Amino acid sequence: MPLSLPALMTLLAVLWLLFTAFMVGRARGKYKVPAPATTGDPAFERAFRVQMNELENLVAFLPAMWIFAWFGNPRFAALACAVYLVGRVAFAIGYWREARQRRHGYTISMMTMAITWVAALVSVLRWIDFA
Amino acid sequence: MPLSLPALMTLLAVLWLLFTAFMVGRARGKYKVPAPATTGDPAFERAFRVQMNELENLVAFLPAMWIFAWFGNPRFAALACAVYLVGRVAFAIGYWREARQRRHGYTISMMTMAITWVAALVSVLRWIDFA
Amino acid sequence: MPLSLPALMTLLAVLWLLFTAFMVGRARGKYKVPAPATTGDPAFERAFRVQMNELENLVAFLPAMWIFAWFGNPRFAALACAVYLVGRVAFAIGYWREARQRRHGYTISMMTMAITWVAALVSVLRWIDFA
Repeated sequence: MPLSLPALMTLLAVLWLLFTAFMVGRARGKYKVPAPATTGDPAFERAFRVQMNELENLVAFLPAMWIFAWFGNPRFAALACAVYLVGRVAFAIGYWREARQRRHGYTISMMTMAITWVAALVSVLRWIDFA
Repeated sequence: MPLSLPALMTLLAVLWLLFTAFMVGRARGKYKVPAPATTGDPAFERAFRVQMNELENLVAFLPAMWIFAWFGNPRFAALACAVYLVGRVAFAIGYWREARQRRHGYTISMMTMAITWVAALVSVLRWIDFA
Repeated sequence: MPLSLPALMTLLAVLWLLFTAFMVGRARGKYKVPAPATTGDPAFERAFRVQMNELENLVAFLPAMWIFAWFGNPRFAALACAVYLVGRVAFAIGYWREARQRRHGYTISMMTMAITWVAALVSVLRWIDFA
């Protein structure tokens, strides 16, 4: 089924979100920031921001990617999700090290987000029927 | 295709979420709140809360809207999403200015959320078949 | 329609997310933490973390649950969502009282999340067709 590829990539994207949450839990222990606090050692705060950024971008990316997959091309949508994920992983690995190192991954994922959004818009507009 | 209208509105909702995130980035520069900090100048904190509120409401709204679109009426679902977005934009513009000015937009989007949720529930219950 | 059961459970999950947001608003008044602040009395911070945790987990759970429902078994997916919700409610009720009491509900919802994710993966892999 053509939609199975974007579904598979969605499962990987969701797994990555859960992993960044797991890393926040680990940083809570390592840097002694017991819940419910969300501030403390900068390394903890970076881990926390990685997860939040992952979350807010995924909520924007997944709907756009699925609209592209459904109304446009599911294989290209799955490919876009793969590239997006590469950017997200690079973003997280960089940010976990140092705030400045999040830039490259961020650029990759944001450019993929923009391309996916435009591709979704074009795909949908072909189907719009106001009559 | 009837689902293309809610898809189009979803793309606009997602774009608005990304715009509120962009405004947080801008406020980081303007009010000198380098990442990963999330506290500082109240104007930065308001920009941050606008984005977070956008995010948490969209995660609740989009599933309800799509369930209404799929099981009920996709044109009314798209209309609900348009009204919801008007409320969200008014909420953000007000909140960026002053915390109190977020009220009107909040009320519009929350009433639309409630109506959409009930419409989705009624639409789904007609299709439930436990047999 | 088989997908109506996961849709119904999704509406309940979304309602629960909105309720945890409502509890944050109530805690803002009770513990005098006016917006946009997100820190203050530990009871407010716990209410805030309940909502954020609800949000970040729902963004991971709903896509996995829907992929399982669409490519696998919608009735089992709805059941997984019901068990997940029981865990989330127990998590919130515990956390609202005391940070340590969030554990049991967390374990239930996370185990359900893991099972649902694997079930979704297995369901999708059967449909993958790279040819």
